[in-house]
Amino acid sequence: MNMKKQMKIVLQMVSGYGGEFKTWRLPEAKEDAYTDMDFYVEMAQLAEKGKLHALFMADTPALVNDLTQDTPMHSMDPLIAMTSVARATKHIGLVGTFSTTFNEPYNLARHLKALDVISHGRVGWNAVTTSTPATAANFGSHLKSTQERYGRAHEMIEAVQGLWGSWEKGAYIHDKQSGQFADMGRIKPLNYQGEYIQTKGPLPIPPSEQGQPPIFQAGPSPEGIRLAGRFASGVYANPFTIEESREYRNILRESAVAHGRSADDINVFTGFMFTIADSKEEALARRRRVLEFDKEELAHRLSYLGAMVGLNFQGIDPYQPLPDSWLKLARANPHDPRSPRALAVLKEGYSPVDTLAHGVINYHPVVVGTAKDVADFLEEWFEAGATDGFSIVPDLAHDGVRAFVEQVVPILQERGLFHKDYESSTLRDLLGVPYQYGIRTEE
Amino acid sequence: MNMKKQMKIVLQMVSGYGGEFKTWRLPEAKEDAYTDMDFYVEMAQLAEKGKLHALFMADTPALVNDLTQDTPMHSMDPLIAMTSVARATKHIGLVGTFSTTFNEPYNLARHLKALDVISHGRVGWNAVTTSTPATAANFGSHLKSTQERYGRAHEMIEAVQGLWGSWEKGAYIHDKQSGQFADMGRIKPLNYQGEYIQTKGPLPIPPSEQGQPPIFQAGPSPEGIRLAGRFASGVYANPFTIEESREYRNILRESAVAHGRSADDINVFTGFMFTIADSKEEALARRRRVLEFDKEELAHRLSYLGAMVGLNFQGIDPYQPLPDSWLKLARANPHDPRSPRALAVLKEGYSPVDTLAHGVINYHPVVVGTAKDVADFLEEWFEAGATDGFSIVPDLAHDGVRAFVEQVVPILQERGLFHKDYESSTLRDLLGVPYQYGIRTEE
Repeated sequence: MNMKKQMKIVLQMVSGYGGEFKTWRLPEAKEDAYTDMDFYVEMAQLAEKGKLHALFMADTPALVNDLTQDTPMHSMDPLIAMTSVARATKHIGLVGTFSTTFNEPYNLARHLKALDVISHGRVGWNAVTTSTPATAANFGSHLKSTQERYGRAHEMIEAVQGLWGSWEKGAYIHDKQSGQFADMGRIKPLNYQGEYIQTKGPLPIPPSEQGQPPIFQAGPSPEGIRLAGRFASGVYANPFTIEESREYRNILRESAVAHGRSADDINVFTGFMFTIADSKEEALARRRRVLEFDKEELAHRLSYLGAMVGLNFQGIDPYQPLPDSWLKLARANPHDPRSPRALAVLKEGYSPVDTLAHGVINYHPVVVGTAKDVADFLEEWFEAGATDGFSIVPDLAHDGVRAFVEQVVPILQERGLFHKDYESSTLRDLLGVPYQYGIRTEE
Repeated sequence: MNMKKQMKIVLQMVSGYGGEFKTWRLPEAKEDAYTDMDFYVEMAQLAEKGKLHALFMADTPALVNDLTQDTPMHSMDPLIAMTSVARATKHIGLVGTFSTTFNEPYNLARHLKALDVISHGRVGWNAVTTSTPATAANFGSHLKSTQERYGRAHEMIEAVQGLWGSWEKGAYIHDKQSGQFADMGRIKPLNYQGEYIQTKGPLPIPPSEQGQPPIFQAGPSPEGIRLAGRFASGVYANPFTIEESREYRNILRESAVAHGRSADDINVFTGFMFTIADSKEEALARRRRVLEFDKEELAHRLSYLGAMVGLNFQGIDPYQPLPDSWLKLARANPHDPRSPRALAVLKEGYSPVDTLAHGVINYHPVVVGTAKDVADFLEEWFEAGATDGFSIVPDLAHDGVRAFVEQVVPILQERGLFHKDYESSTLRDLLGVPYQYGIRTEE
């Protein structure tokens, strides 16, 4: 059977609200979603109803933004959130970000392997280096050089995988008749002696249904691409255009091959945000409302938008479309990949405020419109070979996840672009990546 | 109302099987309880049905015993287990052991505070120093001196408590009308600069219903007693006699006072094990059966028992009571606090195997008998002022927890020795210890 390749979709859980940090004020929002694990679990169950491949929890070990008006960037604690969700779901993958710089390998390996066992093989580790002054200060540490961070990252993944593999398959016997609980001959210390990491093992944990969690990676530096090529089954990417995304995906695939793996062993997940409503105008109205929660920030964004297209918006009525005479003078800033889209939207006759409502200065590409608009966007990127899947970010989780699951997913399924059910109960199988157990050493 | 003081009871969860490491072979046992979180949660729910104050998870970060025939000493991972249980219970406390030696304070503080928030104030931290070669090797570390371990332990608890307190009460505003999410003026870095620990903060987490988790301690060295006096709301103790227990409790109470606290701020939990059946003979038969699973170990224990009472059991029939001529020569070993009890049981006319079945060489006092026998034991110790409560260890969790909850608890309640319902939903209130938020500095 020659099956059409299908896209994979993971949901970014953010802090419980969504990817826009003021949507918590919308009437639809639950204002204490950050601390309400019941709500978090409800969102996860909804995502599972939509057959999404995994939940993704970004993280960094510090409070990173000003919370005076904005919701946090991350969950209170990804491990606690993943465990809570694991107990209330059956199929969806659970991918969490844990720093390679600021964790003890034994503790991290143990947490993730135990979670992998109790979730029956659904855990993934997004292994990222951490390098901000705020995070380093939380760990009594100075900023580390790139070389040191990546040197440690390679050793950290090796050591964690090695600890994961310290119970060979079949070591967990538990046979009442013979009285053998475990085969100690198949439980072996790792004795890892690296430059940055030393750990002996073994862990006290047998293999899960997927053996051990697959590795994810994020970060487009040359060092990040090498790390991904060597270890990653999934990569989170933040391109703004199809061309940029395709090029990055090819580089990652080449890196996998260069490290003795198949190009298809890496799945690229492209981040994108959305606001879904029954019409584009309704979706724009919602985003305008959110922009207007903070007039000062709106003014700042308008000035930024002006700069992006080479205009000065001082003194204009930002709710009116720009006159043709202005638009003729406008130029996309070649140093900002979002500028051409910003200019195109302005030229379509949208006011500067409505142009911002399109999400043209967001961190990800944004679709503001109907479920069909979202599905069209996903299809276009996927069919262009720009990505293997998407990391979706609703503006507000409370209704955004439901809209995606109930409206976008059926369109994608109908078009044959998305699976109709889970093919497996392990994350590794859902990703379609080969089995691996224990440390990965290059051939 | 002058209420009678009541005992507090916590359940040792061990690895899912119980405190005897071969009971997993009994027909009643679930052989894969170690990796089955559903079962672990079921036990916790049963304990909650019995109004037990808390679950307790001992731990050390290493595989510490030979699993050829024995079940593990600890759970796969206490944090994952506690989180799973938190989501499936409402009132019972969740106390976990986490090393002060081999954790990063920021990571540990964050995990435990997040868990405290999602459990609505039910978490406790058993803060212990770790000092075995096997654990040190897992952390690329050499064995540390007592001074260094306890120096770090004091700093670790201070730093973790300080991070816990980094969001003042009322900092978490989340008011849609005003648009204020948090009061950044009440979220402050800790800037902890110790000799062993440096961490800046703040954590990204508001207070829980109990503010922050209370501290537990275990370990009777002078340094341990100082640590407990300064910080602990609960202490796990392993005395073999009422006198020993009372003396230790008094020392702990004095240590609390010496550190500017009330003596009643420390609850001592005495460990004890039990096997409950409809008759003592039936209970002994079950324990004999477990002893007989491993004839080699039984022979070893018999020889050990002989040495404890000054006799050589070589060549005797261990299923027959000892002749009077032997018993007259027997002497309790003054260096082993379990010896007088071993000798007393032999003198009651029990055979050496049945004497072992009484649990006389176990790590804790053991009650083998009916539910009433267990209740009588608990009453005697409690009324003698030996302890504030008990840390109970069934021989096998699968039926032991049920027997305790359904048979022992009602007797204790009838005698007015145990509460009939939870008085509060926070662990701090259940322990009856004062509110504390943030770092504890001595007055």
